[in-house]
Amino acid sequence: MPTPDTQHALRRRNLSRVLRAVAAAGPMSRAGVAARIGLTRAGVAPLVDELLRAGLLVEAGRAAPSGRGRPGSELTVSDRGPAGIGAEIGVDHLAVCAVDLRGAVRARVATDAANRRSEPGPVLRRLSALLAEVTAQIAAEGLRPAGLTVAVPGLVALGSATVVHAPNLGWREADLAPELAPATAAYDVPVPLTVDNEANLGALAELRLGRGPDGAAPPADFIHVSAEVGIGAAIVVDGQLLRGARGFAGELGHVPVYPDGRPCDCGGRGCLEQYAGERAVLRAGGLTPEQAAAVQPGPGARSALLARRAADGDAATIGALHEAGTALGIALAGTVNLLDPRAVVLGGALAGLAPWILPSLERELALRTAVAPAAARRDGCLVAVSRLGADGPLLGAAHAALRAVLDDPVNSIAPAHPPQS
Amino acid sequence: MPTPDTQHALRRRNLSRVLRAVAAAGPMSRAGVAARIGLTRAGVAPLVDELLRAGLLVEAGRAAPSGRGRPGSELTVSDRGPAGIGAEIGVDHLAVCAVDLRGAVRARVATDAANRRSEPGPVLRRLSALLAEVTAQIAAEGLRPAGLTVAVPGLVALGSATVVHAPNLGWREADLAPELAPATAAYDVPVPLTVDNEANLGALAELRLGRGPDGAAPPADFIHVSAEVGIGAAIVVDGQLLRGARGFAGELGHVPVYPDGRPCDCGGRGCLEQYAGERAVLRAGGLTPEQAAAVQPGPGARSALLARRAADGDAATIGALHEAGTALGIALAGTVNLLDPRAVVLGGALAGLAPWILPSLERELALRTAVAPAAARRDGCLVAVSRLGADGPLLGAAHAALRAVLDDPVNSIAPAHPPQS
Repeated sequence: MPTPDTQHALRRRNLSRVLRAVAAAGPMSRAGVAARIGLTRAGVAPLVDELLRAGLLVEAGRAAPSGRGRPGSELTVSDRGPAGIGAEIGVDHLAVCAVDLRGAVRARVATDAANRRSEPGPVLRRLSALLAEVTAQIAAEGLRPAGLTVAVPGLVALGSATVVHAPNLGWREADLAPELAPATAAYDVPVPLTVDNEANLGALAELRLGRGPDGAAPPADFIHVSAEVGIGAAIVVDGQLLRGARGFAGELGHVPVYPDGRPCDCGGRGCLEQYAGERAVLRAGGLTPEQAAAVQPGPGARSALLARRAADGDAATIGALHEAGTALGIALAGTVNLLDPRAVVLGGALAGLAPWILPSLERELALRTAVAPAAARRDGCLVAVSRLGADGPLLGAAHAALRAVLDDPVNSIAPAHPPQS
Repeated sequence: MPTPDTQHALRRRNLSRVLRAVAAAGPMSRAGVAARIGLTRAGVAPLVDELLRAGLLVEAGRAAPSGRGRPGSELTVSDRGPAGIGAEIGVDHLAVCAVDLRGAVRARVATDAANRRSEPGPVLRRLSALLAEVTAQIAAEGLRPAGLTVAVPGLVALGSATVVHAPNLGWREADLAPELAPATAAYDVPVPLTVDNEANLGALAELRLGRGPDGAAPPADFIHVSAEVGIGAAIVVDGQLLRGARGFAGELGHVPVYPDGRPCDCGGRGCLEQYAGERAVLRAGGLTPEQAAAVQPGPGARSALLARRAADGDAATIGALHEAGTALGIALAGTVNLLDPRAVVLGGALAGLAPWILPSLERELALRTAVAPAAARRDGCLVAVSRLGADGPLLGAAHAALRAVLDDPVNSIAPAHPPQS
């Protein structure tokens, strides 16, 4: 989106470009920054000075002499100062983490939680306690919250903090802002609060952190499939999330795969979630969620249990995962035919189950997306497994929370750092 | 997409804004243009003069005195000069039309054609003859081609004139540019040739010309479903076509609806086209396409025949259309869950069959998209019927062909109109 071309806006954009350049590729010299963002070294110098004064950049030592002028110091982003706070409300866990400007996770707490069919109030109060714990941890290291993003397994109204419907939590029209206000009010400065769907945040993590086995960045057009108890997807087009007219895009879990099949909580029939959701897979593998919880408690435990049983050769579990892969392949074939992405990335709990899900998934996908001819399919849609796995949404939330600093570096932290004149 | 902020680029953008403003809302005075696009009247005057000299705008008479200065003339876009040429290659017809800057159709020719499982060469030579006929017709009225856009029922590689796969034509890897070069070489000036999927062009027509019963413009986020022999869709997000990484997005006809169902030519099973495509509906209604063609030949004839039989109360046809609506509703439910559009617009042959298709389609859609709660659905996804119907892709092609003129008004026609100094 273009911003007005005022001097002020131009300076803000250039500060952002300098900070992003060093964050992405530092340590680097002033000359390196200038070359990377296409400004002169003289134009870059005052921007770097301002970012140094604000504590966002630090000098990391001397680079090799450049041949003329004084040797440039290497610049790097600070490991103190602003941190992005990510929080995740899962059906059976809560988690909070803090990421610094270098992208390092500086604190992380997680706990089991029975959030299925819960009330928002008590869950958010528990989350607030975790937020306070993480804030205290990072304060000891000279970091302070610059933004909070909360990942939820449900539909969030565009540009709001309202969870419109989170079926597996049992929440409807829950505005998280009032309940989280006391937690963020404890911060030094007001910070922006964002609530987003966990699949969207998992996709942002993939864009920011995801690397294939060959170290290559993910393509700019992909479908990120995320599963915890439910199944969601994020659609990334040209590096941007496609959110839908009301913010509800990506409900892959409710794409019909067997239209006369099992009734779904959503009121439909034969939705993907009834075949590839965690409860469905546990049931097909011969376990209730309660039995599974008794065998192995904790976040991500049920999918870990499924992976262990499959690795041990349990035929019912292997069959259940095969059927889940088939259903995922059918739903994704429709998705790929509609959207023509470069890749499908399996994230969340699906990442750890990929060995047993992928064969049937890939077979269905190949069979049902053959309308694009072989020549085009050679560089067609790949299926990849996220290396971030179940951590994706939480990490994506923390990185999203840093965006205000990266977009508008000095103003976003001005109250804590009055500029020196 | 931002263009470089040179004086030249700025002037070109402003010429485009003036021309688009008058095309969209004229006749209007210079003051009206200035108010509409946010420039001063002094800034608008030389732009208007240049567009008048180029013959793109004309003075349409005097507006009411504005109270100060000389009374402004009303400006309107010319009904001479550049015309957009749209062509359509259907499975059983060919058509060409010309649209002037005012949006009026100035010439139109169409013919039956047996293009199923054809070779591109003979089809394109026939199309070239129609192009020559339309060019001659409009030349007599002072119009000349400014661009040619060809609608095809198949996959077109992004930014190319190559039909990668058109299953119902039987074409693969067919580059249309060499065969159409003689036709466009006959024009005064070189014109851009564009080839695009017919559903995409139908959606562009809907954006440009579509109006609901209340006269309202279509929303910026919608799915345009198009059917001739096959079924395609265009995905419009924020007023722009979503084309996919390779240009193949929108293959709704190959979304699986009954995954263990009928085999499809694409190699898949249970694709939507096997239940809601024309051949499937004719067969379910008790007719082969050959019998249908014998009853009523010509473009759009088979869907007209289906509509007549349904209107006459033929139970087999009514049942077939009901089943088609069910299958469309299942596929669209998945699409709506994935993309969260404001509306689904039924275009092409589906528009005329809507009375018999809509009830079952809307029932499935409502049943299977209930994950978004009632409060959100109140202003949720509407199903609308295109008023353009089968004409959409051809009109969309002609309007798309005018885009070069609207984007860069004076340069695009410079060879024919050297600027007067």
